[in-house]
Amino acid sequence: MRATLIYGTRDIRLEEVPDPAIRFPTDAVVRVVASCVCGSDLWPYRGVRPVTEPSPIGHEFVGVVEEVGSDVRTVSPGDFVIAPFVVSDNTCRHCRNGINTSCEQLEWWGSTDRHGVRVDAGQGEYVRVPLADGTLVATPEQPDAALVPSLLTLSDVMGTGHHAAVSAGVTTGSTVVVVGDGAVGLCAVLAARRLGAERIIAMSRHADRQAVAREFGATDIVAERGGEGVAAVKDLLGGIGADAVLECVGTKESMAQALDSTRPGGFVGYVGVPAGGPELPIQKMFGTNVNVAGGVAPVRAYLPELLDDVLKGAIDPGRVFDVELPLDQVAEAYAAMDERRAIKTLLRP
Amino acid sequence: MRATLIYGTRDIRLEEVPDPAIRFPTDAVVRVVASCVCGSDLWPYRGVRPVTEPSPIGHEFVGVVEEVGSDVRTVSPGDFVIAPFVVSDNTCRHCRNGINTSCEQLEWWGSTDRHGVRVDAGQGEYVRVPLADGTLVATPEQPDAALVPSLLTLSDVMGTGHHAAVSAGVTTGSTVVVVGDGAVGLCAVLAARRLGAERIIAMSRHADRQAVAREFGATDIVAERGGEGVAAVKDLLGGIGADAVLECVGTKESMAQALDSTRPGGFVGYVGVPAGGPELPIQKMFGTNVNVAGGVAPVRAYLPELLDDVLKGAIDPGRVFDVELPLDQVAEAYAAMDERRAIKTLLRP
Repeated sequence: MRATLIYGTRDIRLEEVPDPAIRFPTDAVVRVVASCVCGSDLWPYRGVRPVTEPSPIGHEFVGVVEEVGSDVRTVSPGDFVIAPFVVSDNTCRHCRNGINTSCEQLEWWGSTDRHGVRVDAGQGEYVRVPLADGTLVATPEQPDAALVPSLLTLSDVMGTGHHAAVSAGVTTGSTVVVVGDGAVGLCAVLAARRLGAERIIAMSRHADRQAVAREFGATDIVAERGGEGVAAVKDLLGGIGADAVLECVGTKESMAQALDSTRPGGFVGYVGVPAGGPELPIQKMFGTNVNVAGGVAPVRAYLPELLDDVLKGAIDPGRVFDVELPLDQVAEAYAAMDERRAIKTLLRP
Repeated sequence: MRATLIYGTRDIRLEEVPDPAIRFPTDAVVRVVASCVCGSDLWPYRGVRPVTEPSPIGHEFVGVVEEVGSDVRTVSPGDFVIAPFVVSDNTCRHCRNGINTSCEQLEWWGSTDRHGVRVDAGQGEYVRVPLADGTLVATPEQPDAALVPSLLTLSDVMGTGHHAAVSAGVTTGSTVVVVGDGAVGLCAVLAARRLGAERIIAMSRHADRQAVAREFGATDIVAERGGEGVAAVKDLLGGIGADAVLECVGTKESMAQALDSTRPGGFVGYVGVPAGGPELPIQKMFGTNVNVAGGVAPVRAYLPELLDDVLKGAIDPGRVFDVELPLDQVAEAYAAMDERRAIKTLLRP
């Protein structure tokens, strides 16, 4: 089969690799229907995280089950399935607490597992899925093709945006600020609307992303950043910060923006992968009772409820995909996102 | 009247100062029935926070209203009142959000207010109370003398322990660890029990404090610290950390202890005044979804519900006072706490 490997900085190649097969009785093999490029894939792409050897890449995909191991019970050949961005058993104590990303049997797509076996990544034609019962979620029936982009967002960005909103305690009537206008930030806007937020301020300087944010439920756009951005937010919210600020970037600047935009007693819900820090300023947090919650999103735990809403048309997070390419143009898919020509690129094998 | 002033490191004096009088129509004058020394008073006492000039000290007191300004509506001469550890109007946006410690008219006992007028502190015979309607909470009738210590804890330590528990989301069935066995830590144990925690592990190495912790509802005591303490906690909790860890100290070590004792997806509720840091390790928090909430406790917001429970005998937080002294021995009250001969010292003018 063909699969995407990253060789180094800005060196993405689609190569012929061995077809995956069942190796453990809890495995399934999935034929990929759609996958995509994640903002976090740009880290090794840009050399922020060094690549030491050619590695399979991609952690978001949906597809159809081809084959299952003898212990697999919840999915069957022919099922349309969504794969969250990590492998989990969905039965251990952490999974039962809703934190599948801390699963006792956690594995990452594209890594080498605890048995020393390579785990496939998502940007290919087929994937061997470990712990298929825990990891995969099947749709009740074959979904309409038009739903595929939205279903694909449940692999990561929609669940991640939702995690930011849930972590920040967004509820009916909340005032919300979303820092970050990438696919996760836009999904966080949608998640906040879905949870009943009354006011949703999207911080964005790009017209295309502002448009999606509006469509997803943003009531206001703030293009300013830093102190001016904080002032603009407070201006919109009667002089104080927001109840909930969803930090969907992960830089020092974005976290500072989030902390400064939160009202005393409010929450920063953060899902931006912290880019080498910063540490959080506890003295400042202490004085204002600004709380910080979130982390790597346990999207598996949220998948059933979000899937319901996608299937009934209540949310359409697939709107974050503004470029679609065949898998053999995967290098261009990375370049388009790297150069901000695309919000998010969908790939079809 | 006589009032306590701090002159410098380990230099506490009871001195004759002018009697307080109404200066603003929103003031009340309160005759102090009981006050006490706070762990945070030991900071200037120990020289951790330098004292630049002789300053009135003490921020926890209960007493009887002597006189009120013309605008005061909710308390009257003769009322028994509890004063939270900060002055607040209880009407501004932050107060309505339950964060009186961020009040738009916030003042600190013993400081100089926005009008340049000295605010009295609590360790004296009388106190001019600014914003009396917002700040003071009166008991429905004159309380029994035996209740005074418990009522006095509502000024600070009981409300602060409660804030740790609320911030950490303690609820029915929670597993809880309390880091810190000072008066606040012990009150946090009591607060966790009150909120329905199933398992409460108090981290303490002192037999007298362990005894109070048990009495307050601790189901287990862990005397170890650091990695051994974390291992002991996990051992008691079936291998994972606690749902909620209440950090009631404020040092780098205590926060690390708290973060390491929390299960993935759990909360650290912190109320220990951060002693010059540390900053919080966001990378680690991100990976485990350990959340951090809390800060300077808005005890005014919690006062009515906690007062109810004290008056009906449901909680007896006054047990944290193990030494009682007349006000003229205030210097010894500090020394006893500094030298850990007392958990908390109550002072009677």
